Amino acid sequence: MTRKQKNRFFLNFTLVLLLLVVGSAVSNAKRQSDPLPSWNDGVAKNAIVDFVRSIVTKRSPNFVPVNKRIAAFDNDGTLWAEQPMYFQLLFALDRVNALAPQHPEWKTKEPFASLLKGDVKGALAGGERAMLEIVMSTHANMTTEEFEQIVKDWLAAAKHPTTKRLYTQMVYQPMLELLSYLRENGFKTFIVSGGGIEFMRPWTEKIYGIPPEQVVGSSIKTKFELRDGKSVLVRLPEINFIDDKEGKPVGINRHIGRRPIFAFGNSDGDLQMLQWTAAGKGPRFMGIVHHTDAEREWAYDRKSHIGRLDKALDEAKKKGWTLVDMKKNWKVIYPYHLK
Amino acid sequence: MTRKQKNRFFLNFTLVLLLLVVGSAVSNAKRQSDPLPSWNDGVAKNAIVDFVRSIVTKRSPNFVPVNKRIAAFDNDGTLWAEQPMYFQLLFALDRVNALAPQHPEWKTKEPFASLLKGDVKGALAGGERAMLEIVMSTHANMTTEEFEQIVKDWLAAAKHPTTKRLYTQMVYQPMLELLSYLRENGFKTFIVSGGGIEFMRPWTEKIYGIPPEQVVGSSIKTKFELRDGKSVLVRLPEINFIDDKEGKPVGINRHIGRRPIFAFGNSDGDLQMLQWTAAGKGPRFMGIVHHTDAEREWAYDRKSHIGRLDKALDEAKKKGWTLVDMKKNWKVIYPYHLK
Repeated sequence: MTRKQKNRFFLNFTLVLLLLVVGSAVSNAKRQSDPLPSWNDGVAKNAIVDFVRSIVTKRSPNFVPVNKRIAAFDNDGTLWAEQPMYFQLLFALDRVNALAPQHPEWKTKEPFASLLKGDVKGALAGGERAMLEIVMSTHANMTTEEFEQIVKDWLAAAKHPTTKRLYTQMVYQPMLELLSYLRENGFKTFIVSGGGIEFMRPWTEKIYGIPPEQVVGSSIKTKFELRDGKSVLVRLPEINFIDDKEGKPVGINRHIGRRPIFAFGNSDGDLQMLQWTAAGKGPRFMGIVHHTDAEREWAYDRKSHIGRLDKALDEAKKKGWTLVDMKKNWKVIYPYHLK
Repeated sequence: MTRKQKNRFFLNFTLVLLLLVVGSAVSNAKRQSDPLPSWNDGVAKNAIVDFVRSIVTKRSPNFVPVNKRIAAFDNDGTLWAEQPMYFQLLFALDRVNALAPQHPEWKTKEPFASLLKGDVKGALAGGERAMLEIVMSTHANMTTEEFEQIVKDWLAAAKHPTTKRLYTQMVYQPMLELLSYLRENGFKTFIVSGGGIEFMRPWTEKIYGIPPEQVVGSSIKTKFELRDGKSVLVRLPEINFIDDKEGKPVGINRHIGRRPIFAFGNSDGDLQMLQWTAAGKGPRFMGIVHHTDAEREWAYDRKSHIGRLDKALDEAKKKGWTLVDMKKNWKVIYPYHLK
């Protein structure tokens, strides 16, 4: 190698190094400046980012003061998965098995008899009444503190039947990023779910960053009692409130007391929440997670028994609400898919 | 004046100026460093400040992380006055008069007939049932938005029968300072009141700095409806929840989902909330406003029909809860007393 060649070699080498360093810095900056890195570029992501930018910009006609930045999210099928059935129902079925030794009468009493033989379909053939019996026998007649501990213990150990993952691992990475993005922009993020309020509260703060006081859900009645001078709340086998369909705007009004400007759901159970959000004055965002990914998650909509998306899909198209196509719009589904 | 005298004069003058400047700075600093300037020094003020300091100090064995700093306040008689009767009842009575032209049948129907003749005592002689009829006829059968507007309009104009002040001026200055002090120390401040949740939410954010989502109260049922394609919530003449006595821990659990570490009430209606707060693990503060000031406010406790403080007074003394003696502990009562 002549000196000239050597010089050229070192020049090239330095240039390449420089390019690598600069390139990596640029790509890092881009990644950092992208608040939704697990979302593919496209209409859905743009709609979210454009909405948030417009409502936080002081000079914008769409500016919304911080105290009115309320965002409401459904949980099952919107923040975490819901197949092959709502995870809370899987919890209830596990609890029936765990409690069976204390209930010898269940061996001959439906829906428990079928359930204990492993015949879930048979047990649920009794419809809403059967479901209610299963829920009440596993969710009531204990203190709120006892129930909280049971939920925590179950979530720490139980595995999903097909993914074999913990249920709290089956949350949607893109939605976790969306929750953080909204909070960084001054939003209070709420859950508004048909699921049990006390089933969600023990873990939503750790997993979603949503504290118990920002969780709205279905509930059973509780009763204040003094036991040996210590006050407890006892969970009664009686429905207090069903936070689904027409119940969602009622639950939002009851718990939050003002109308969200941003709402996300995934099924017909969320239609009224989205309508209620849309009916407010000023800028609004209504979004729907559409389960289109049979490979990485599940694909279902109009005909599904769990999380049916039919009327709300029509209304979303008619009203121009944002439809998130899971397969096309999301780079990853679960956090454990991240490299 | 000799040069020496002149020099001495200027030295003294400078010293005096310096003292004035330093003195004013010290007194300003003292005023600024006092988070509760309307509270007289004493046991109650010390108990509050000592508690807050201990739970925010990282090395303290009493340290409480920010997300668990939940404070619950009763409203009537704790944050604003409640005599000669709950302000919401005065609102309802005013509404009966305003609505009377649309209800000719009220002229001969109790409790309305007595009320319209100005005989409040006679109207309320019908007890809880009469009260309920008055509340339902004035609080229901309209949308949530309509009711909110009626409350706002009333509060903007109606005057208290004896002070002739707006009701929102009859809030307790020392309690406003306490709310701010807690929030500055990372607390979320909640109202937990027997009053109507929708009667409080339109004004608590402006007056107390407590947003609607942190208000817990009694409620009537609501129903979601589509009216000409627009979604509304209609207020039904049916009780949903009474947030009083045993109801307060139930309401706290339902809305907040975790136990307060700090609670303030003023009557037996708050006893269970204070017991529930006290029964948690770790450091706790339980406080009671004792109405002892017949001159600047009202003096009442064990025998009062409104805001009776009897059992809770005994329990406070037995358990060492903090009793606030309004007359002795508060420099001013209402903000308009401030100079």
